[in-house]
Amino acid sequence: MWMSELSRRSGVPVATVKFYLREGLLAPGEAAGATRAHYNVGHVDRLRLVRALVEVAGMSLERVRAVLVAVDDDRLPLGEAVGGAHVALSPEPANAPSEHSTRRVADLAERVGWSAEARHATALAAALDAMDAAGQPLSDDRLDTYARAAATVAGADLEGMDVMGRDNATTYAVLGTLLSEPVLVYLRRMAQADLAQRRLGG
Amino acid sequence: MWMSELSRRSGVPVATVKFYLREGLLAPGEAAGATRAHYNVGHVDRLRLVRALVEVAGMSLERVRAVLVAVDDDRLPLGEAVGGAHVALSPEPANAPSEHSTRRVADLAERVGWSAEARHATALAAALDAMDAAGQPLSDDRLDTYARAAATVAGADLEGMDVMGRDNATTYAVLGTLLSEPVLVYLRRMAQADLAQRRLGG
Repeated sequence: MWMSELSRRSGVPVATVKFYLREGLLAPGEAAGATRAHYNVGHVDRLRLVRALVEVAGMSLERVRAVLVAVDDDRLPLGEAVGGAHVALSPEPANAPSEHSTRRVADLAERVGWSAEARHATALAAALDAMDAAGQPLSDDRLDTYARAAATVAGADLEGMDVMGRDNATTYAVLGTLLSEPVLVYLRRMAQADLAQRRLGG
Repeated sequence: MWMSELSRRSGVPVATVKFYLREGLLAPGEAAGATRAHYNVGHVDRLRLVRALVEVAGMSLERVRAVLVAVDDDRLPLGEAVGGAHVALSPEPANAPSEHSTRRVADLAERVGWSAEARHATALAAALDAMDAAGQPLSDDRLDTYARAAATVAGADLEGMDVMGRDNATTYAVLGTLLSEPVLVYLRRMAQADLAQRRLGG
């Protein structure tokens, strides 16, 4: 397909496609003359991934590049490629989280039997710090309830992943995770609104 | 307290506090001479709320104002005040979601017994559309699993809310909900990373 169809099918404007090409986030098409190139369905998938990372996750181009390096490194075993792309979803907090929250996260991981995954754990500790700072601390009971719910959701997410091919698995780990986060957020708000109406009226 | 202490305790820079005063998002302090005013702990709480709405939720000043109107309307019964503030958390999607996703959300609400809450439901349908558009559709089974997990989390969130005072209940509904959303997101990523490592290695 030409650039115009690539733009239409991916929903990314032509000027943005050209920008991603210049930045090396999208591989060049197959040259067809001096100024035109052919693109394929792999380019459409890659553009959707880059767009979700930029627009849904709000990642900088530097972080998008780190995700794509893990996705594209064929030397990595599947688990490492998926893990490397997935871990890059969580930002490194600007400041180290408090010892208190770091300890709470480590204790939780031990209670529920999760192996320590440093980047997500650090981001979680920073999120707990933000709740403390706002005068809305999360109790240990609620944290445990959240963790059990998160484990249930993750179990459903992983179903069928081991039969996916490599590209599909990494894209699913990154794009599927990012795009389903708002779904979880809105479902919880719906459940809260329903419960609040029953309890408080109105 | 003076403006400088208000700024320190809320973590909001003085220039931003003055901006919120001009925009009417923060009530004036008690005048103490021509150019100074006293502020109280209510001002600290309000600043934390406004900051979370702007910085965590990324709301426009117009949407922040809509939340505060519901929080401050003393004529509303508690349930309506909380509900009005809570519903304003979800944006109206720029375009109406598809009939297909709207129908899926309505069917889900019926299956799990949630009363229809239009704004969150519309936002959820738009989030499902985004997954479809990216080639990462969410199956009905996963949607049901997510909804059950969301109901469990919401149950823990509502515990104890009915014994809170009015201001605390609305602030909790808005600020507590927003700030705990990243906690849920990072917990799920940790659970996914743990499961993926077990299943795929790496």
